[in-house]
Amino acid sequence: MRAEIIQKLGDIVGEDNIYYSLEDLYCYTYDASFVKSDPKKDLAGVAVYPGSTEEVAEILKLANQEMIPVVPRGAGSNVSGGTISVGDSIILVLKRMNKIIEIDSKNLIAVVESGVITAQLQKEVERVGLFYPPDPASLAFSTMGGNVAECAGGPRGVKYGVTRDYVIGLEAVLPNGEIINTGGRTMKNVTGYDMTKLFTGSEGTLCVITKIIVKLIPLPEAKSTMMAVFSEIDQACETVSEIIAAGLIPCSLELLDNIYIKNIEEYAKVGLPIDAGAVLLIEVDGDSEILAKQIAKIEQICRQLGAVQIRVAKTKEEAEELWAARRAAFAAVSRLRPTIIGEDATVPRSKIPVAVRRIQEIAAKYDIIIAILGHAGDGNLHATILTDETDLEEAARVEKAVDEIFVATVKLGGSLSGEHGIGRAKSKFITLQTGEAGLKAQRQIKKALDPNNILNPGVMFGA
Amino acid sequence: MRAEIIQKLGDIVGEDNIYYSLEDLYCYTYDASFVKSDPKKDLAGVAVYPGSTEEVAEILKLANQEMIPVVPRGAGSNVSGGTISVGDSIILVLKRMNKIIEIDSKNLIAVVESGVITAQLQKEVERVGLFYPPDPASLAFSTMGGNVAECAGGPRGVKYGVTRDYVIGLEAVLPNGEIINTGGRTMKNVTGYDMTKLFTGSEGTLCVITKIIVKLIPLPEAKSTMMAVFSEIDQACETVSEIIAAGLIPCSLELLDNIYIKNIEEYAKVGLPIDAGAVLLIEVDGDSEILAKQIAKIEQICRQLGAVQIRVAKTKEEAEELWAARRAAFAAVSRLRPTIIGEDATVPRSKIPVAVRRIQEIAAKYDIIIAILGHAGDGNLHATILTDETDLEEAARVEKAVDEIFVATVKLGGSLSGEHGIGRAKSKFITLQTGEAGLKAQRQIKKALDPNNILNPGVMFGA
Repeated sequence: MRAEIIQKLGDIVGEDNIYYSLEDLYCYTYDASFVKSDPKKDLAGVAVYPGSTEEVAEILKLANQEMIPVVPRGAGSNVSGGTISVGDSIILVLKRMNKIIEIDSKNLIAVVESGVITAQLQKEVERVGLFYPPDPASLAFSTMGGNVAECAGGPRGVKYGVTRDYVIGLEAVLPNGEIINTGGRTMKNVTGYDMTKLFTGSEGTLCVITKIIVKLIPLPEAKSTMMAVFSEIDQACETVSEIIAAGLIPCSLELLDNIYIKNIEEYAKVGLPIDAGAVLLIEVDGDSEILAKQIAKIEQICRQLGAVQIRVAKTKEEAEELWAARRAAFAAVSRLRPTIIGEDATVPRSKIPVAVRRIQEIAAKYDIIIAILGHAGDGNLHATILTDETDLEEAARVEKAVDEIFVATVKLGGSLSGEHGIGRAKSKFITLQTGEAGLKAQRQIKKALDPNNILNPGVMFGA
Repeated sequence: MRAEIIQKLGDIVGEDNIYYSLEDLYCYTYDASFVKSDPKKDLAGVAVYPGSTEEVAEILKLANQEMIPVVPRGAGSNVSGGTISVGDSIILVLKRMNKIIEIDSKNLIAVVESGVITAQLQKEVERVGLFYPPDPASLAFSTMGGNVAECAGGPRGVKYGVTRDYVIGLEAVLPNGEIINTGGRTMKNVTGYDMTKLFTGSEGTLCVITKIIVKLIPLPEAKSTMMAVFSEIDQACETVSEIIAAGLIPCSLELLDNIYIKNIEEYAKVGLPIDAGAVLLIEVDGDSEILAKQIAKIEQICRQLGAVQIRVAKTKEEAEELWAARRAAFAAVSRLRPTIIGEDATVPRSKIPVAVRRIQEIAAKYDIIIAILGHAGDGNLHATILTDETDLEEAARVEKAVDEIFVATVKLGGSLSGEHGIGRAKSKFITLQTGEAGLKAQRQIKKALDPNNILNPGVMFGA
């Protein structure tokens, strides 16, 4: 990066909020995905931490004039390579802008800056009896801005939807440095195009999100948690379909396969039967009067479809124990091999049994380990590939397997990504789903709003 | 329209599906709004009724080559002037494409062509225990395509959201005739930009919607309806705020002011107290075990805030009687004056009391009649201006009053339109809310996808 640009950026954000040493810049070649920037050619030129929307606007104006790529970044916890450096670029980190501006319990909305940690917002709204449901696994450290940019999901998606279902307004800075407000504070709003939803999930390619208005809902009165163990994974998958088809919508409906079960038990000793084909972790919430009825119906469906063991938590502590297994999942399998690739191909819920079988066949065909865990209730499977990226021969087989998983997913009417985003990891696959004409329309929108292609170039659309 | 174009269009849709006589074309100078095309200069050149997506694509290809404006139209029931002819244009009516393609109760989705009547879809999904909540007043005749293009709302919005909250995938024809599929059949989907939500509410300016995938939810087990009568409208407005702030989310929460009450009673004799300041019609739904509890809490809030009379329906028939008042509303007040202008400015829920007072002050200032009815639960007020458009002096006062209502709405953090859309009726006000930079970004998107400005020119953005 030219010294003159670094000087100007320093003037904008202040000397304490700009970093350009080699060791600092190395940090931005990574995010939580398996995609990395090559430090030899893709090291960023500078990282800046603005403290206000006006500073963000100044930075973008400068970058646009000078045609310098800008990579917006929150906690860097995305898993699709959406926040890594792209050559002599500006890393624009929003973490200093971390104020909860307002929790309005009369209107059931909250207004936050984009650097607010998701869990912190949840904690604050729950203190006043309200609820912000989206719960990505990263919520303890990921930022609201990142959640909006990626349209983060989570286990509660099955009942409560994802980030897009809660974002009703944004303050955003366009690539030319103009500050705009989209949507607003009302539940109904049809004034012009829905720029709010267009920006939600746009992965930092159309604007930099600086403020977010989310709708909140009343906190459910109570919840109830159960676990069902199946000998065969097919039975568990069929059970998921049946629960949904019966009109019962749990707030979480998580599936763990045998690879996960065995490793979780070895790692965390939570009492899972290690020879089980699959486990379903099911949670319902709502008015306390109706939970027992729902749990009874779900238990009945589980038994009909062959559950060999059912545990219904009687206390909060027992519920925590059941969740402990799910929480230990990634840590447990990450001991197996040095590299974890977490895919999140998503299929219509009724296709879960066939999707799981296809993934297992693909794993066998290429002789690789794929563990399956998933937000099964909304068809969002997390096929977890356990591999070693330094073994080039195996890496080639993994690549072929991933290709086949994506093709199979789209054939089943599914989506390449349910909640992780396309980023740099999946951009080569995007036309599988959008088609050429569909992608062209998206590129036209990108070009219209960012004619110099300065915002996160390469993300979503490839080079 | 040149004879050669009419010939080509006739070849595409068949001779039975094309209309170009003067009397036919006059019909398209109207929709359900008070905005009309001037037949002297804005009469359409031809109306076509395609029978398939491929025919729509052929029509758009031709129109784009020949730079002929195209006005997509469903039932023409929109109330913002979004479907009226614009000079020598093609009216593209989607009503023949009216097949319910699929109701998938395993995955809780339905796939429909855009000409399907909304009420028909609702009836069909309810037969299998499912629910498509959006309920615009026009649902008995409006089409799903129109509902999506306008992002239609309705009374149930307060609990269940609006059309955009249910549309998860579209088949759409771009202005250049390319057919694309957006979104899909999965609940979670973050592959590329959210074109589905961008197109929802785009008022026929970006694409012609040909197929729609909507998510469905389980049909609530039961519902319970009540009416609360207040001496003062302020008390009713405060009650709305309190109900929501107490975490009670009714499925409908409708407000009627004294002008409505008096006229409904005169017209329909449903037993309303004609000296009441306001009536709230409240409906809750869900599991039968919890409805009584909810109604009791709501009743308590109503009494605390001064309700002078409360009627809780004990039977389905009694609930129907309560709704009869609401249903008769427009017919009742339409007897007062020859012209009805229904605005739908929307404010944050806590601002309803002040918004209502502002509207009443504006009515007094300009000496015009404005009755207020509203989906008060989501802040979506329908200020109903009763006037006579042929009285030019009064019309000038009405115009000034409408201007002031919009300015007041935006000042209160509200939206120009909650569910009716901008259309031709409100395009001159749009920057009040979007700002210049926000509108420019929207225009850039329009230009990117429709460079020849053939789709519904003038709608949303003005001339």
